[in-house]
Amino acid sequence: MDQDIKKNRTTETTITILKADHTPLANQEVTIEQTNHQFLFGTAAFDLVPFASGDYAGEEKEQAERRAEKITALFNAATLPFYWARFEPQRGKPITEKVKNAARWCLDHNMVTKGHPLCWHTLTADWLLSMNTSEILQAQIARIQRDVSDFRGLIDMWDVINEAVIMPVFDKYDNGITRLCRELGRIHMIKTMFETARETNPAATFLINDFDVSSAYDILIEGCLEAGIKFDVIGIQSHMHQGWWGVEKTLKILENFERFHLPIHFTETTLVSGHLMSPEIVDLNDYQVNDWPTTPEGEERQARETVQHYQALFAHPLVEGITWWDSLDGGWLNAPAGLIRKDGSLKPAYEELMKLIKGKWWLTPTPFFTDEKGQIHLNCFLGEYKLTFGTLQESFQVTKDCSPVITVPG
Amino acid sequence: MDQDIKKNRTTETTITILKADHTPLANQEVTIEQTNHQFLFGTAAFDLVPFASGDYAGEEKEQAERRAEKITALFNAATLPFYWARFEPQRGKPITEKVKNAARWCLDHNMVTKGHPLCWHTLTADWLLSMNTSEILQAQIARIQRDVSDFRGLIDMWDVINEAVIMPVFDKYDNGITRLCRELGRIHMIKTMFETARETNPAATFLINDFDVSSAYDILIEGCLEAGIKFDVIGIQSHMHQGWWGVEKTLKILENFERFHLPIHFTETTLVSGHLMSPEIVDLNDYQVNDWPTTPEGEERQARETVQHYQALFAHPLVEGITWWDSLDGGWLNAPAGLIRKDGSLKPAYEELMKLIKGKWWLTPTPFFTDEKGQIHLNCFLGEYKLTFGTLQESFQVTKDCSPVITVPG
Repeated sequence: MDQDIKKNRTTETTITILKADHTPLANQEVTIEQTNHQFLFGTAAFDLVPFASGDYAGEEKEQAERRAEKITALFNAATLPFYWARFEPQRGKPITEKVKNAARWCLDHNMVTKGHPLCWHTLTADWLLSMNTSEILQAQIARIQRDVSDFRGLIDMWDVINEAVIMPVFDKYDNGITRLCRELGRIHMIKTMFETARETNPAATFLINDFDVSSAYDILIEGCLEAGIKFDVIGIQSHMHQGWWGVEKTLKILENFERFHLPIHFTETTLVSGHLMSPEIVDLNDYQVNDWPTTPEGEERQARETVQHYQALFAHPLVEGITWWDSLDGGWLNAPAGLIRKDGSLKPAYEELMKLIKGKWWLTPTPFFTDEKGQIHLNCFLGEYKLTFGTLQESFQVTKDCSPVITVPG
Repeated sequence: MDQDIKKNRTTETTITILKADHTPLANQEVTIEQTNHQFLFGTAAFDLVPFASGDYAGEEKEQAERRAEKITALFNAATLPFYWARFEPQRGKPITEKVKNAARWCLDHNMVTKGHPLCWHTLTADWLLSMNTSEILQAQIARIQRDVSDFRGLIDMWDVINEAVIMPVFDKYDNGITRLCRELGRIHMIKTMFETARETNPAATFLINDFDVSSAYDILIEGCLEAGIKFDVIGIQSHMHQGWWGVEKTLKILENFERFHLPIHFTETTLVSGHLMSPEIVDLNDYQVNDWPTTPEGEERQARETVQHYQALFAHPLVEGITWWDSLDGGWLNAPAGLIRKDGSLKPAYEELMKLIKGKWWLTPTPFFTDEKGQIHLNCFLGEYKLTFGTLQESFQVTKDCSPVITVPG
């Protein structure tokens, strides 16, 4: 696995450093340090909406500040909430400004933003129920156009459609999106939503996302591709409240999607640090508990599994992002799924992830000597870097098969 | 349900009977009797291959004859075996002539024939394993061209591809078809096989067939239709060795396929008359027993469930055929899945089916009086009929929205 990480996440690079007069900065000591990963290490960050909008005060605000610091120290990507029921509880009154505050806060803290989701049958607007399907379709299209447009530049990555496999046969309760999907069919539904999103912001990154990791999902993707739909990224949820999948199952699942040669994001990754949910539960939402404590043994297990899970995914050539779901305990299902306990303290899984993301897979400030040509040869992780020469600093990117040329001023 | 059967399987028809001089046969008594159903009541009839080829002798032959009589008395359709491993165990030496004997025998006995299957990863030719995938593809295409062509007129209905949902991820053992499907992808695989078959015999009826009745199958069909593949019939297997699905589940499954507005065949229907296979078994082939006896209680249950199953399917507007799998006990998995016991005696399920297919859903010879216009008005099941007037006999068909006009000679 370490071999695959080396192969897929690092590159042999030659950095050429020139002086202002374009001659090599030969035989000098410079310091190079990594400042970001190309790989997206993300987290659900719904808490940033009230936080960045100034909804918190006093002790609550301080706690939220400390959490936000912990998040930005570890992660470089954030998923922000666009659940229609909450985003636009009253038709025509979306909470656009509040979510914009969160998106801006993320960008200010070097986090890539993603909106989740634009179209989903769960937590959709209940006011769709009074419409006929043609009106629902128009409302859904208008919603995508409005939000993708409003957030352009603030959010340029979207989970366009969520859980389309179950969408038309979802039978827990009546909702407008299931009605619409039943009428259009999955592929036409997906096609419409992706085309709408892409027309609105052609430069953005658009994902399909699902919790269904059976053949149904990869067959759906195959059908969509046949129908001419363009996906930028395949999103795979991995809510492992019932136990870690293990590396073997994870790789087996990935195998089903490899043939599309598309980037893959693990969009919603959960590993709990308490007791496991019983395996016979099919819909995780059926598990409702008031108290689901984090435990010392659970936290050890969570840390161990998190490391192995991230290692397996980081090693895979098509995986380009993993999002933790979510950082703080007590979110969805009241689960101890966080990396941060309710009291704000850090769990072992957080520390272990830090050791990987900003340790083993990271270049801390390191002195290098340039050769006669002003060059440095190194093997490093793909991402962003900073070069320091005396008091001069320059940023540069390391991507596959590129040789950065840096000119230090002065 | 009876209302739906009436609506979907019968028609109000006006039969006009003319004399040779084209004037009405007015105010005369005629006898009308049904001779066939439009609906396909089929059975797997693999036993007909050795039987029709004269491979049996003595007591064995007599038993086979009696079974064949029982089959033709009840059924109007037969599925004949084209498992590649058995059809062409040695490359270039297919048992075409033997299967042709069976097909001819079926046609002689008024049974519609279907070939099963042209492409399947199970029981496929093991000599494909020495080929590369390009050669496997050519061999598979050639096989379809040869067999669909050789049997034209004898078999004009085919299960083109079997179990494509699992085909590329089937991992019980290596085989050429899984390799090929993994490389082509399911949709391209299906497209290639259907196009090959249709080019070879454009007038034939081509089915896709699967045991997977989850969303994966209807999503695959949706993707295939988007890719421009034409299916004549959707085939659904229903091997209920683990217990009858019940009407509710059966209708729920049908619901997932209704949106395609394509005819549906229940291609492989099994209900055992012995103990049920344990529900946790995923692949039925894993259940290997030497003895699986039919029991009196099991036979009662089988009869009861068979009646309800056939009633539910016969009532559904899109279902156009049901095939029993198979008639005699001790076939696949050694299961007591037959309508006929190993000793050749009939089970209650056979008798109950007979009461429906040739009883409740059938017109036995019945006298009618023509009116002044030589017409008879009746509500009858779609199918073939025979009119007798004195010593004269004429056959005619009753389809939806048609009014047969019959001229009696002499």
